[in-house]
Order: sequence, then C-alpha cells, then structure tokens
Amino acid sequence: MIRAAVVGGAGYTGIETVRLLLDHPGFELTLVTSTADAGRPLEAVYPALAGCGLVFEDPSVCDVAASADVVFLAVPHTASLAITPALLDAGLVVIDLSADFRLKDAAVYESWYGTPHTAPGLLPSAVYGLPELTRASLPAARLVACPGCYPTATALAAAPALEVGLASPSLVVVDAKSGVSGAGRALAAGSQFAVANESVKPYSVGSHRHAPEIVQTLSSIAGSPVSVCFAPHLVPMTRGLLATVYMSAADGLTSADAVDAYRMRYADEPFVTVHPDGTMPATREVSGTNRAHIGVTVDPGSGMLVVACAIDNLVKGSGGQAVQCANVVFGLEETAGLTARGPVV
Amino acid sequence: MIRAAVVGGAGYTGIETVRLLLDHPGFELTLVTSTADAGRPLEAVYPALAGCGLVFEDPSVCDVAASADVVFLAVPHTASLAITPALLDAGLVVIDLSADFRLKDAAVYESWYGTPHTAPGLLPSAVYGLPELTRASLPAARLVACPGCYPTATALAAAPALEVGLASPSLVVVDAKSGVSGAGRALAAGSQFAVANESVKPYSVGSHRHAPEIVQTLSSIAGSPVSVCFAPHLVPMTRGLLATVYMSAADGLTSADAVDAYRMRYADEPFVTVHPDGTMPATREVSGTNRAHIGVTVDPGSGMLVVACAIDNLVKGSGGQAVQCANVVFGLEETAGLTARGPVV
Amino acid sequence: MIRAAVVGGAGYTGIETVRLLLDHPGFELTLVTSTADAGRPLEAVYPALAGCGLVFEDPSVCDVAASADVVFLAVPHTASLAITPALLDAGLVVIDLSADFRLKDAAVYESWYGTPHTAPGLLPSAVYGLPELTRASLPAARLVACPGCYPTATALAAAPALEVGLASPSLVVVDAKSGVSGAGRALAAGSQFAVANESVKPYSVGSHRHAPEIVQTLSSIAGSPVSVCFAPHLVPMTRGLLATVYMSAADGLTSADAVDAYRMRYADEPFVTVHPDGTMPATREVSGTNRAHIGVTVDPGSGMLVVACAIDNLVKGSGGQAVQCANVVFGLEETAGLTARGPVV
Amino acid sequence: MIRAAVVGGAGYTGIETVRLLLDHPGFELTLVTSTADAGRPLEAVYPALAGCGLVFEDPSVCDVAASADVVFLAVPHTASLAITPALLDAGLVVIDLSADFRLKDAAVYESWYGTPHTAPGLLPSAVYGLPELTRASLPAARLVACPGCYPTATALAAAPALEVGLASPSLVVVDAKSGVSGAGRALAAGSQFAVANESVKPYSVGSHRHAPEIVQTLSSIAGSPVSVCFAPHLVPMTRGLLATVYMSAADGLTSADAVDAYRMRYADEPFVTVHPDGTMPATREVSGTNRAHIGVTVDPGSGMLVVACAIDNLVKGSGGQAVQCANVVFGLEETAGLTARGPVV
Repeated sequence: MIRAAVVGGAGYTGIETVRLLLDHPGFELTLVTSTADAGRPLEAVYPALAGCGLVFEDPSVCDVAASADVVFLAVPHTASLAITPALLDAGLVVIDLSADFRLKDAAVYESWYGTPHTAPGLLPSAVYGLPELTRASLPAARLVACPGCYPTATALAAAPALEVGLASPSLVVVDAKSGVSGAGRALAAGSQFAVANESVKPYSVGSHRHAPEIVQTLSSIAGSPVSVCFAPHLVPMTRGLLATVYMSAADGLTSADAVDAYRMRYADEPFVTVHPDGTMPATREVSGTNRAHIGVTVDPGSGMLVVACAIDNLVKGSGGQAVQCANVVFGLEETAGLTARGPVV
Repeated sequence: MIRAAVVGGAGYTGIETVRLLLDHPGFELTLVTSTADAGRPLEAVYPALAGCGLVFEDPSVCDVAASADVVFLAVPHTASLAITPALLDAGLVVIDLSADFRLKDAAVYESWYGTPHTAPGLLPSAVYGLPELTRASLPAARLVACPGCYPTATALAAAPALEVGLASPSLVVVDAKSGVSGAGRALAAGSQFAVANESVKPYSVGSHRHAPEIVQTLSSIAGSPVSVCFAPHLVPMTRGLLATVYMSAADGLTSADAVDAYRMRYADEPFVTVHPDGTMPATREVSGTNRAHIGVTVDPGSGMLVVACAIDNLVKGSGGQAVQCANVVFGLEETAGLTARGPVV
Repeated sequence: MIRAAVVGGAGYTGIETVRLLLDHPGFELTLVTSTADAGRPLEAVYPALAGCGLVFEDPSVCDVAASADVVFLAVPHTASLAITPALLDAGLVVIDLSADFRLKDAAVYESWYGTPHTAPGLLPSAVYGLPELTRASLPAARLVACPGCYPTATALAAAPALEVGLASPSLVVVDAKSGVSGAGRALAAGSQFAVANESVKPYSVGSHRHAPEIVQTLSSIAGSPVSVCFAPHLVPMTRGLLATVYMSAADGLTSADAVDAYRMRYADEPFVTVHPDGTMPATREVSGTNRAHIGVTVDPGSGMLVVACAIDNLVKGSGGQAVQCANVVFGLEETAGLTARGPVV
Repeated sequence: MIRAAVVGGAGYTGIETVRLLLDHPGFELTLVTSTADAGRPLEAVYPALAGCGLVFEDPSVCDVAASADVVFLAVPHTASLAITPALLDAGLVVIDLSADFRLKDAAVYESWYGTPHTAPGLLPSAVYGLPELTRASLPAARLVACPGCYPTATALAAAPALEVGLASPSLVVVDAKSGVSGAGRALAAGSQFAVANESVKPYSVGSHRHAPEIVQTLSSIAGSPVSVCFAPHLVPMTRGLLATVYMSAADGLTSADAVDAYRMRYADEPFVTVHPDGTMPATREVSGTNRAHIGVTVDPGSGMLVVACAIDNLVKGSGGQAVQCANVVFGLEETAGLTARGPVV
C-alpha cells in the first residue's frame, strides 16, 4: 500500500479527501493533520466518520515526510507554497488542492492573490490535475496542481467545443452556480443558513480568483487567447456545482451534432457522461461522486452553443479529483476508490 | 371601492393575487373562482388565509361580469383567450396574468404555443403590463397583458443599458434562476421535493416560451432586433427569481458609470433599487414583495456588462405586478396594497 | 405618535422588531442601536430594508431615554439587567425581549444563567408578555418580559388543557422544532448552511434555558407544579417553530371535545387559530406573521392528548409578540402593525 | 453469485435497493421490474445510475422465479400478499419491504390496512427483519418482513432500555421526524417542494400505520403490552429520519449510566453507534448509509429518559436493511455491500 497523508484535513476539501482515502484499495491513510482541531478524533468533528479511529495530528509537531509517500495539501493558498518544496525534496509526491501552483505565470498569481509567489521555479514542472485534459502528463508528475471547482466544470463543458472548433473562442460566458459548501468550513456570514437559504445571489463577478485559471485553461485548449466572462452564484444547497457555458456556435452546428461530438470526445472517460440531446444534467445526479454530467444544446434563436456541466464541488471539484490524479500518478486504476455510487434519490 | 374578481384563484399566481387584494385599500375582492377547488373555503386549501371568509366559487356557474369592475385572470394560456372578449364586452377591465396577449404577433404566439390565437383583434390594444416600461399606456388600457416572470426580471435588468446604448444589442445572454413555485401548483415530477431539493438544473434551453417575449421586449427597447440566448434554471428554493444578463459593454464603460446610469434610470421607480457598485442582489432581499433589486458591473477581463435582477417570481413576477398595473389603470396610488415589507431575515 | 427605540437592532429579533415598527400606525421608530454595526445604514446590513433611511446608532453615545417613550431591548441576557433600571427611572416603558425578567425567582435565573440577577427588585412588577395569558396585567406594566420562542408556542399549546383539566399536569412532554434563525445572527458552526441543511438534530435536551420558563408558566396555569420534559430540535428551515406537546388526557376525552374546548378558549384571540379536528398546522402557514396555529388530537391507542402549535419564531416568538405587548400597554389596537399577511405559498 | 431481483424497482425504496445491489460482492442483480417505467433504462429515470446498463422490465411478462434466488419486494401493501406465496413455492427467498407480513396478528393488519390478509398462514414463519433484534432467526428465514422506517428507528432507540428495565414500559412517547422522500415517489401535494419546504408539520397523529408495528415490537421486547403515543412529522429535507423517544427512567438512572448501557448493548453491532454522553445525533451523519446513530440522556427535571435515533430512511429504514437481512439469510458477511461511507459534509 502507498502511504498517504492529508495536510489540512479538517476543512471540507480535506475531510472529503480523507473520506475517499479511508476506503481506497491502493492508498493507506497514515496521517491527517489539522491545526485547529489537533488532538481531536476525526469522528468528534465529523460524526459520519464514526469508527475510523483516526485523530487530527498537529502539523507543527508531526513529520509528514516520514509518514507518507504522497501528501494531499488541503490548505489555503500560500500555505502550499510554504511547505511544498521541502516535501518534494524529501521525495514525496505532492497533490496540491490549493491555488498555489495552478497559474503558470507567477505574475498573474501575484496579481490575483496579492502575495508573492515564493516558488516560481516549481511552476514549469507542476502538472495541472485535470485528467480528462492532462492525463498524459500525470504519470511523471511529482507536483500536481489540482484545479478549482469552477475551472473543472467549465473546462469539461468548454473543452470539446474549443478543441475542434465547434464554437468561437472569442467570447465564453460562464454562469456558474455553487452549493454553499464551496465557501468552506470557516465561519462566514454568507454561509449562515438564514442568509443562504431561500436565496440565489451572484458574487465576485469580474473579480473571482478562478477567472484567470479559466482563462489559462481555455486559452491553452483553444490555442489562442480566450475572452472569458465568469459570474459565480451561490445557491441554497450543500453540495453541487453547475457551470452553464455560452459560446457562439459554428455556422450550421445542430444540437444533435454537438451532442455527438461531445460523446465522441468523452467516450473513454470513466467519469464523464454526456446527456442525450434534449436533456440537461442536474447536480443531484452526481452528488457524492467523482462524476461529471454534461448537457449540450444549440439555441436556435441566437446560434449560441449552451453547455452545462454538473459536478459535486467537493468530489470532482476537489477531493475526488485529487485522488483521481494520484491514482494516475502512481499507476493505479484511475477509478480506484472512486466507484461508490451516490444517492439516487 | 372598486370590485375585483380573481379567476383561477387556487393556483400559485392566483392565490398570490388574492392575498394582495385582501388587504388592498382600493379594491374590494368580491369573487375568487376555481374549478378544481370550487366549494372549498380558501383557508381549507391555504391555511395561511385563516379568517378570510372566502370560498372558491365554481366559474361555470358564477357571473364574473356582474360581480366585478376588474378581473384578474390567473388561468393557463388559451383560457384567457376564451373568456377575455366577453369580459371586455361587459365593460370590465381585464388584467391577464396568462401568456395569451403578451406577444404582439399572433403568428409568433401560434408557433410557440402550438394553438390558434382566437382573438388577434385584441392584440393591438392590449397593453404589456410592465409599468417601469409601459406606464404611460396603462391608464387607457382595458386589457393588460402581464409579463412572464422571466421577461420581467430580464427587461428590468437590460432596459437601461439598451435604451441609452451602454451595451450592444447584438447579443444578450440571459441565465435565469427560478424557485420551484415558478412551476405552479400542478403536481409534477420536477416539482417534488426529493427531485428539486439539493439540485440545480437547466431546463427548456432554447425552447422556453418566455424566449420570444424577451426578444419582443428587448427589441422594442433597443429599436432593432436583439438576439437573445435564454437559459432558465430551477434552483432549490420556494420563491425568488434571479436573471443574470450579459451584454457587450460600450467601449470605456466602467462599473461606476453603469451603476450611475441605472440609478438615474430608476430614480423615480417606487419598486426598483439599484445596489451600490460592488454588490449584487440576493433573491432573499425581495421575498414576498413587489420589489426588484438590481446589481450592475462591468467585467474588466471580457468587457461584458453583467446585470443581475432579483424579484419574487410570485409578486413582481406575477400577482404583485398585476396589482401594480391595476392600480395605474384605475388611477390609484401605484404602490397601493403593495407596501408591506417582506421578511428581513 | 408614540416614539419607539430598538436597542440591539441588528440581531435577528431586533431587526424583526424594526421591520414591524417601520410600518406601525401608532409607533414612530426614532432610534435603532447596534454596537457591532454602528454607523451603517440598516439597508447595508439588511438590503430588504432598502429605502428605510435609518442608520444603526452607537448605543454608547446616544441618549435612548431622550429619544423614545418605549424601548424594545433586543439584547443578550445580562445586557437588559444593566440598562433597564435607568430606562424605567427615566420614565420609559421597557419591552424586554431578553431572558432577564422572565423568571420570577432570581435564584432560578442565577442557577440557569450562571450569573447574578442584579435587579431582583424589578421582578415582581415585570409582566410576562404573553397577551393570551397575561393580557389583563399589561396595561399597567412598565416593564414587560417577553417570553422565549419555545415557551410561547408551548404555553399556547398546553394552556387550554391545563386550565380546565383536559389533561393531567403530572407530566408534559414538549418536543419542539425550530428553524435555524432561532440561533440568532452570531456566527456559529451549527448555524452554517452545510451543517444545518438536510439534517434534524436534538440539542440541549435537559439543559435548555427555556425549560425553567416553561415550568414556571405551565405550573402557574395548572396551579400546581408541572413536570416538564423539554427537548428542542434544530430543523433545516430559516423560520418557524413547532411545539408538539404530549399530556395524559382526561378519561373519556375525545378529539372532537378537545378541539371544541380549544376553539372556545381562543375564540376571541385575534392571532390564534385552532385547526379542524383531524388536521395539524404547518409552520409555513404562519411564516412572517404574528399568528399561532394549533392542532389538537387525542391518540386513541395511548390516551394521550397531543397538541401542536406553529408560530414564526421571529414574530409571535419574538419581535411580533413584543409589538403586540406594546400595543396593549399603550392602549392601541392589539393588532396594530401586525395585520400583514404572510406568504400563502 | 446469488441471483437477486427487485420487484417494484422504480420507487424510492426499490431504486435504493437496486443501488446497493449493483455494487454488492455477493449478489448479482439479474432483474429489476416496474410497471410504470417498464421498458425504460434505469438511467433514463435516475440519471445517477448512468452506465448501469439495466432496463426496467414489465413484471407481467417476466419470470421472476426463474431469474433469481432472492427477490426484494419494493411494492405497496397487498401487492406482496398477492405474489409472495408463489415466489416461496418456487423456492425463492423473499425479502419483503412492504407492510404485508410485519404484523403477526392478521386481524390487526386488517384493522389498520382495511383489507383482508390473504396469506395468514405465512405469518408465523415470516421473520421480522431487524437484525439487531432478530438476527438469530434470520438464517432459517424464507420470508423476511422488513420493518417500516419509523419502527426501525424507534425500536433501536427503545430496545436497550426496555430489555433491561432502564425505563418503564407503561408509556413510550415517540416524536418522529422524517425527510420528504419517506412519502415515496408518487406525486402528492404534500411532497411538492413549495408545500414541504420551509415548514414542519405533524401528520397522521394517532392514525399512522406504523403505530401498531411499534406497539408489537416494543411489547415483544418488554414482555408486556407497551402503551405507545406515536406522532410523525414531515421536515424539509430529502433524506433522514430521527425518532425521539421519551420513557420514564428508572429511579436513580443517570445519563452516564444510560449511555454505558446502550454502548454495551450495541457494542458488537456493526451499524450502530452510541454518541458520547452530552451529544445527540444529527440525521446528516448517517445520510446515504445503513448506520444508526443514537444519543441518550436523562432529563433531570422530569426524570425522563430521552433517546434519539438517527437513520437514513431509505437505507437503514428500507433498502439497506433489506440487504443487511439478505446478507444474514444467505450467510454472507452482514456488512457486505453496505460499507460505503456517506458524505461527511
């Protein structure tokens, strides 16, 4: 068994990674750290983990490098910057769920995150962890930069169209809807039940840090700069993320053609399903799983290609994708530990 | 007091109209009809109306024309077509909440609704009931065609930009999110709690019947044909509707400029509030009220003007707007019966 | 107009009181204070109050006594103790929404709240503000101690049975369910959407501070000590509170008899409705209103009388009841400012 | 592999059984029937099952007996009565999720269900499928009558106390709260999102068909007739069921003692966890799993023992428990196919 550690395991993305690793056939979870909850059994914080037997360890006193072959960093940005170089030097594979190594251009990082990038030398070798796009590069990776939840759904929705010219790269409008768990476990006014319930609200339009990541990914796919307008919204559900992507369709493209092209593109992808022409995905369908469900249509009135991609923000949008990447890096079955079906109802 | 009747009062839009008329200072609610619930007290169906003393009457046996000066038709499309001519002939003012008289071109109606328009002669004099756009025509109206919920929010979001050229009319993308009550009271699989809860889903993309109404309204505002891409989504809340509208901003337009222009446009509107630059509206803010809250920003990366409008789909999107229109038609204070504040939390 | 101030107006019970006073025909809202939000317009914190024009004032610098004839204290316990004596001395009527003057025995207060009661001399003249039980004492009151939300619903459910011996006072089981707003505006893990959503949970069973208040009220009604087992639960909704009360029915009591007795008891109460035999109330029915809806049945298998009372925890359970009490104290119509209907759907 | 069929697979309990059997190591799912959805792929009805490859078969034309060694009946009551005798005669094991064989006394069945019991001869050998209580009888069973969701949670909560006299059997009050999926997939007004959301409501108090089943089970445990007052409530969540059970505690019983007794009783149970003294379970903790989490406390004021049991109504309350029973009947590991962890957040 490959030894795995989760650093920052008490937050939502961390604990989701823990959940998936606890039952993984190829990884053995040896260490879970948390500064805030150090010393507490995992099940005291998350009773759903009753019986798991693990305790949150204090990261300031435990030796991560000696405990694991692979480490999942579920920490805020800048925290990954601080510890990744030493972990790599110690020979570990680092699966980073933070934003620190996603943007290839350190200056873009510094502009959007407002802090220096202290390890720019690692950027060229960091592999963006979206297997459906970057699978070939993963086996050789030592540092995987897992995408944000919004960029994951957006890229899966837009990639097939941009790759083969089904739509124009001149403008991509991304209207995204996320469940409240996307805001994380930290107490915040906007995450309070009485504030978020029975309400839909846009936030950070034009200023969300996932915007440059989406631009980078879509431009890389298109082979030219793509203009992206990204508007995230908070919706009253715990989990789930839907990205609705609008692009100008190529002349004469029909919905049936578009569905066929998407199905061909994703035919061999174990986690991606393209809905039949005429139906759209609901986030409920993929809840608790690493799956992405995609619906495709051409609006006859405007000639726009509309693609919606539904994921679980904490699984395919975070912990599940991290495990999927680690599976590929270590040569395991890509779906290992990720096959459990979610609730049907 | 002006005598008012509600035909089709047991559905969600009908009962919301009833609720508002029960406490209205200028209208006296004399009759509420329902085929399905005829003979039942209103409070037996809607216990929130305890004490109102009214009973649903059977529309097949009661004389609406003799009972009222104004009638609100909260019936499915084609039902308004069937009864409106006689009600007008009898001298009543008809406030139609259905779709039958919204589209000015009978051929467009027939194409989208798949049924003949049996009263095309009434279309020229029917006034579209969106007071913020059509107030001047309302006092003379005998037949008011109240807008759909999506077109209401979309028009309020897009009008100021299109009227003065803040944005290009070449393409308007409308990503709209509605609470489940928008689907009405009829039993439907998609409206079941276990289906709609914890899920977001697009539906009827490219085929929703509100699309041609949006095209008609925006084109009228812009003075030229507007291309609209309209994608409605179902979100897990009872009430509320948010339309997020994307348009290409005029060169050099800033967010601050855009907010100023919107505030100037709506300065005298009693039901419209434009949020400060940098904040966006949540549907919770307007729940239970006839208000529309609007947020405006320019996305610096893409140059798109993004405008979000939040309304309560059953009030400003339906029953409240109908009452607002009736107030104007009858020369009452426009806000009469519509001033109660909704829940703050 | 009678001048009214709200101290602690930025919390959920405070802002609900503000909402009701803003449109009140007999009170003029002259001052709203908040320590945390001092200097901010109310609508910046609660956009639903757009246009109200008020600003949260800093309570440390404003002169409440000079600004108002009646003051509503929506502050945590002990804060009322600190300021009430001076406000009374200045001649104001104090409507206290906190727990400080609810318990008649200072020792009980000190035991449950773990802090000295610094104004025991005021306890004898403080009137418990549940008009359906204590109306006669209110006109002479200068200090009204408004009940907690759970005690309100419980007392309304149990009082008719205990008053006339429909049930035994030997044991009253109260299983209560509250929406999340009951926990207040303060950030708390249990109030986070991702924690509270899709979950039901008991809390503070045997240790909730409303327990001694329920015991005091029911014992007073019964005329002898009543044993109460009180178990509150958190349910995933913003507003609403349902108390399900179980008592041993008198021999031979039928459901029909019990419903009749409850209807007779509440026949003249403007805010209380007793459901027909065979139906039970839902909290949705009373959302946003000062109403209490009650269902009554006798379980034939066990001989227990089961009574459920639904209220809105922030209205009849807090701000609305405070306004109702103030109406009675000042000789206004008891329903003044409290007649707006809530959402029917 | 043991061949398994699910009859009535398109309802909520049926499809949950299907979900669990699809990934089961010991059962091979050979047939899923549905009258209403015959001919449709499972994933067309439940997109979460994308890729499963199964189609709903028409039960009137397929030979269940030839297709399976064990059949799970997820059908309405009376439908099991109609088909169970022939299935048993054909040598199959029948795991019945309906109510038809739960009540040992046919007269009680006929009284509560208002229909004749056409197979009373099978009642003596039918084994009640609650392994924590009836495990020893399951290996020899040919017909297993799986408990209702409410009786499952109630029995797990009350059994340890009644077995050893921690509480009096004279009166057991059961206040239960269920998510909306408990009402099943059939369209019903009370299951509509706009009706169930933001509301809590008691229903069928004194008349719910699970009441006699609870009486039968608790009386059997106590060894004498137990008086039960059962009040179910609908709460706004998709899944989850919490039974809060109130019993008169034995003299001198402390919370710590009670927790210890419960922990001892369930020490070897793979699916039951007893919370530490002072904490109570939330339904979220067990969502999607076959687990039961139990909290125990003694209310010092009233001397009542209060026990809350949280389960997922569709898993431990239905499909999961059916699979658990089948595992025991066939000598498989009792947890086979039931080990997947549910969402932690």
